[in-house]
Amino acid sequence: MTDVQKIYPDGRVTLREVGLRDGLQLVKTVPSTQAKQRWLRDEYAAGVRCFEVGSFLPAKTFPQFVDVRDIVATAAALPGAHGIALTLNERGVNEALASGVPEIASVVSATEEHSQANAHRSRDSAIANVKRMCELRDASAHKPIVHAAISMALGCSIAGAVDPNEVIRLVEKCLEAGVDAVGIADTVGYAGPKAVGDLTKAAVKIAGKTPICVHLHDTRGMGIANAAAALDEGARILDGSLGGLGGCPFAPGATGNVVFEDLVFLCESKGFATGIDIEKLVAVRSILRSEMPNEPLYGGLARAGLPCATAAKAA
Amino acid sequence: MTDVQKIYPDGRVTLREVGLRDGLQLVKTVPSTQAKQRWLRDEYAAGVRCFEVGSFLPAKTFPQFVDVRDIVATAAALPGAHGIALTLNERGVNEALASGVPEIASVVSATEEHSQANAHRSRDSAIANVKRMCELRDASAHKPIVHAAISMALGCSIAGAVDPNEVIRLVEKCLEAGVDAVGIADTVGYAGPKAVGDLTKAAVKIAGKTPICVHLHDTRGMGIANAAAALDEGARILDGSLGGLGGCPFAPGATGNVVFEDLVFLCESKGFATGIDIEKLVAVRSILRSEMPNEPLYGGLARAGLPCATAAKAA
Repeated sequence: MTDVQKIYPDGRVTLREVGLRDGLQLVKTVPSTQAKQRWLRDEYAAGVRCFEVGSFLPAKTFPQFVDVRDIVATAAALPGAHGIALTLNERGVNEALASGVPEIASVVSATEEHSQANAHRSRDSAIANVKRMCELRDASAHKPIVHAAISMALGCSIAGAVDPNEVIRLVEKCLEAGVDAVGIADTVGYAGPKAVGDLTKAAVKIAGKTPICVHLHDTRGMGIANAAAALDEGARILDGSLGGLGGCPFAPGATGNVVFEDLVFLCESKGFATGIDIEKLVAVRSILRSEMPNEPLYGGLARAGLPCATAAKAA
Repeated sequence: MTDVQKIYPDGRVTLREVGLRDGLQLVKTVPSTQAKQRWLRDEYAAGVRCFEVGSFLPAKTFPQFVDVRDIVATAAALPGAHGIALTLNERGVNEALASGVPEIASVVSATEEHSQANAHRSRDSAIANVKRMCELRDASAHKPIVHAAISMALGCSIAGAVDPNEVIRLVEKCLEAGVDAVGIADTVGYAGPKAVGDLTKAAVKIAGKTPICVHLHDTRGMGIANAAAALDEGARILDGSLGGLGGCPFAPGATGNVVFEDLVFLCESKGFATGIDIEKLVAVRSILRSEMPNEPLYGGLARAGLPCATAAKAA
């Protein structure tokens, strides 16, 4: 059984690199399996421990994740590394369980409109899938962490504004279903820090001992500010991707996840030790640049480097 | 006499476009006077009211501001528009007074090292200059606002870490000298939101009725998060530049000021009405692109547009 408290301990911040899955969801060129493995290992060497390693969605539609089992194995071979795989249905969950990945994630859309348009099912059906995931977890030998994320939780590209009470209702449904961790995602980067802080506070309150993960996109430049607000309101798990990799189908030209290396800087500046070496992390961008030369990479730390005082302190 | 409360009223947020001065401090190509005037007028039409219009530094060293009087006049011709000009010595102050610009700004370095290296004078001498500015203001007919900004207030490219108590001491000196407004500037974008919030809080407390302006650079991607923290701690005047124009000589490749249009979005998302139309503002970037094709422009709103709900509400 994967111990949630061991992976996501109370009171310390865990940063998750989601570039290997969310970051690759929409890219035109895909890194080779070997490059993905180097990416993961080099970030591990920089101190990163949690990696979204890919998805068990149909390889026909998402060929970039056809090697997900190799990446699961790469993470599994590194002491203390933790892999997370996305699944959206029972077939995917069973494949994920068979792979031995220690965390299985699924998604519930915050709005009925987006659920139907994106996943061709109702939100109730998505919740039923989460419940089934928990049953399959309980019946498995290794009992991976089950994580359910509410997508479009801070604004929906189809329905527009989202009622936070509705998001909290869905969080409750996921908790009732038996999940080990809950995510709230600003999938299309609609929100500012006030909305993110308020929703985080409400989610943390209702989740009690169950960890809340806040997954932010930097679509409108609010990513780091939103992460700061989430931390202020008690979130201790945050997602990001190296170089802010990963666009958005609903906002052409929009950037992807929060820039991972800037997120590390934010956390350290707020007094949360991450165990991650920013300069080593920034150096990993060279893999992305050579494998995906046409994908824009973002980030302040990569441009400007660490402040000289911090560099002096580290030296 | 320029009424500080009319320009910077208590309890509402004032956003200042500093691109026409700070943004142009280091660019390789400079917009024509006509282009600067269109830039200012088009932003005015989008709802912007406060503009740093240039500097009265020697035109030999800073030829990009040789037309500062034209830009002062452009702002003066627009009802409710407010121009601000940078000066660093008595000659500059006298020229600024003669131009009729309604706000004159000067800078005091937070560290002795930076003051000597950058302005070739001690901090005491910089404070004496601020005092002289106030005397010249009092002796003038139109009595412009005198604004003193503490540069490197959140980290120094030469001295490294900066003691916040030292910054507050300098703020006090400026208040004693008789300034109408005080600025604290993260000139090289060293800080995270915790440090910005803490310093803002202390400065707002000591300044009492005197408005505090927070001037942030996005060097390490923290600009918007830092602006959010400054707002949370009571700052009501924030600087930014369209497209984040403006680099930093101490950090090659580093971006400049906080992206103005993203700053507007941040404020609105936090419930602070700015009176600025983001889409109109973003459209002004075309002037910068055509005048300075080699200067990178940044910003989330320009890439992704407004969220659909906001657009629907505005329509």
